[in-house]
Formats: sequence, structure tokens, C-alpha cells
Amino acid sequence: MKPETRKEEIIKTAAKLFKEKGYSAVTMRDLATAMGIKAASLYNHITSKQEILKVIIISLAEEFTQEMNLIKTSNHKAIDKLQMIVSLHVQITVKNTYGMACLNNDWMHLEEQLDYYLELRKKYEQDFIDIIKSGIKSNEIIDSNPEIIMFSILSTLRSLYLWIPKKEDINSNSLAQSLSKVLISGINT
Amino acid sequence: MKPETRKEEIIKTAAKLFKEKGYSAVTMRDLATAMGIKAASLYNHITSKQEILKVIIISLAEEFTQEMNLIKTSNHKAIDKLQMIVSLHVQITVKNTYGMACLNNDWMHLEEQLDYYLELRKKYEQDFIDIIKSGIKSNEIIDSNPEIIMFSILSTLRSLYLWIPKKEDINSNSLAQSLSKVLISGINT
Repeated sequence: MKPETRKEEIIKTAAKLFKEKGYSAVTMRDLATAMGIKAASLYNHITSKQEILKVIIISLAEEFTQEMNLIKTSNHKAIDKLQMIVSLHVQITVKNTYGMACLNNDWMHLEEQLDYYLELRKKYEQDFIDIIKSGIKSNEIIDSNPEIIMFSILSTLRSLYLWIPKKEDINSNSLAQSLSKVLISGINT
Repeated sequence: MKPETRKEEIIKTAAKLFKEKGYSAVTMRDLATAMGIKAASLYNHITSKQEILKVIIISLAEEFTQEMNLIKTSNHKAIDKLQMIVSLHVQITVKNTYGMACLNNDWMHLEEQLDYYLELRKKYEQDFIDIIKSGIKSNEIIDSNPEIIMFSILSTLRSLYLWIPKKEDINSNSLAQSLSKVLISGINT
């Protein structure tokens, strides 16, 4: 792993502050205090709170988009693609819980990048539902409302950032495996 | 149905405003304007924004608590109890979507009632997990981590307020049925 740059450190600290106090309540001064540096030197690395928000949210949204592109164009079966999506969310949320909290809670505070973010999200949900529909067509997935299926899976995956911090000592692979089983095969015997 | 009292009307309008602007940003003046009345006459019915928040959240939390008590003490099988819980969330969320949004987004703004709310929520989750554990014991539910099972179901149910308003013409019973099937039996064929 390459060492963290000052800018990366600032972004990490900001994501934690946004989670604790909410984006609107955090000031650049709070951020400088949390970093133990002067506000003036903060501006050597970053121009505004909005720039930080953009970096956090857009880089996550682009990561999800890229991975979804790999998954959807792969040759796997629909059910396997859904398992890969579950793993993707678990891994990103374990790695960057504060960033995911920020994505979920603060996306509406994006300014120039709001439309771009909404476009990426819409595309992601479209790809997700297309995978479900192809699984229904190939008889891998029950013939139920694809939107209800997507809502059910995606609302669990989007809540992971709330739940993961309460679990100590989490193992991404085993969580992804258990969660895939519960979401895909159900819980009844 | 009995006619709505002025106080009920105020509470409904407030829940809608809280959803749109966030609890902190709404003033008693905004509420009076939305009701088309003077702020002074608002105070004939309600003493503060905090009182409104308390009425919205605590009455919902107590409704969930009462229904959970009926479900857990009933003679049904564990899987049937889980289906009843799914129906409960669908019905309450369809009936009172703004209230559920307020419960989910604004509970942390409760003041004297915060501890009471947290106690009710903790008890609800404990009852939920006990039902899952009894279902694992009776071999109705797969022997997986009960917390992962609860998290997976409950995070979907708690997100219903985000999803239901986008669906026109929703039928609570058929939604509860499809969602139960997806959450309990899974989606694979």
C-alpha cells in the first residue's frame, strides 16, 4: 500500500466528521482542528467543503459503476452476478464505511456534480434490474416483480454502513457469503 | 373514520415538512404558513416543534411495540410471525409514509423522550431476533447468523418509506405478500 497523502488524510477525516455531525454542520475550521493544522494550510490541499464531498461521493459512485460494468458484461449466470454485487457492496463498505455513510446521507448536498451522480445511480439501478430480469427470463430467479426484488436487495446493501461498524472483527468474505445466501436463497429451510 | 382534528392535521402537515426540509430546518412559522393559519393560533393546539416530533415518533414506536407483543405471544410458527412483521411494516408505512420518514430520519432530535424511544427500539429488535432464534431451533429457519438475518429483513422494512411513495396505486396486501416471499423464501428458483 502506498502511503496516504495529506489530501487523502483530509478526505478521510472529513468523511468521519460528516458522519458524526452532518455535512451542513461541519466547517472548514472544524476540519482543520480535527487534523491539528491551521485552516490556511488546509487550503493548500483542498479548495472547499464541496470539493471534499465531490471527491468522496463521485469516486465511490464511479467505483460502483466500473465494477457493475465488469459484472454485467461478464459471462456469469444472473444469480452469480447478484452474488458479485453483494460482495462488491460488502467490500467497499468495509473498506470505506465513513465514505459510504457520506454517500447515503449527503449526496443531496452535491452542487455541480448532483446531476452526474444521479445519472450514475440511475444507470446502476437499471443495470441491476436488467440482471434480475435476465435471471427471471433464464428461469434462475422467481417470476416476481423485479422492482420489489431490487428494492429488497439494494436497501439491505445500502444499509450496510449502519450495521458494519457495530460488528467488531468483521470478515468481508464470510459476511458477503452469508448475506448472499440470505438475500438470494432466503431464510426458510 | 372519525374526522381529523386540528391537532392531527397540524401533525400530518409537520411530518410532511420535516420530510421535505429536515426537522432542524423547519420553524413553527413555516408550519403555520403551510397550514394557512397564524403562528399564534398554532400554539392553541401544540406547544412546540419538539412536542410534534414526540407525538409522531413515540406513537409510531408504541404502535410497533404493541403489535410486536401480539405477534410474539401468538401461537403461530416463527415463519408466520415473520410474515406478520413484514405486513405490519408495509401497512404502517403505506398509511403513514411521512411519519415513518420522520421516525427514520429525525429520531435523534428527540429530547426527553430519546431514551424511551431507544428502549422501545432495542426491545423490538430483541423480540425480532428471539423469533428468528426460535425458528432456527424449530428448524423452520436456516442455521445462519441471526443478526445477519434480522439486519437483512429489517433494513428492507425500514427503507419502505423511501420506496413506497414512488409506486402509484400500491396495494398493501399484495406488496406485503410479494415482499414476504422475497425476504423469506429468497429469489432463486
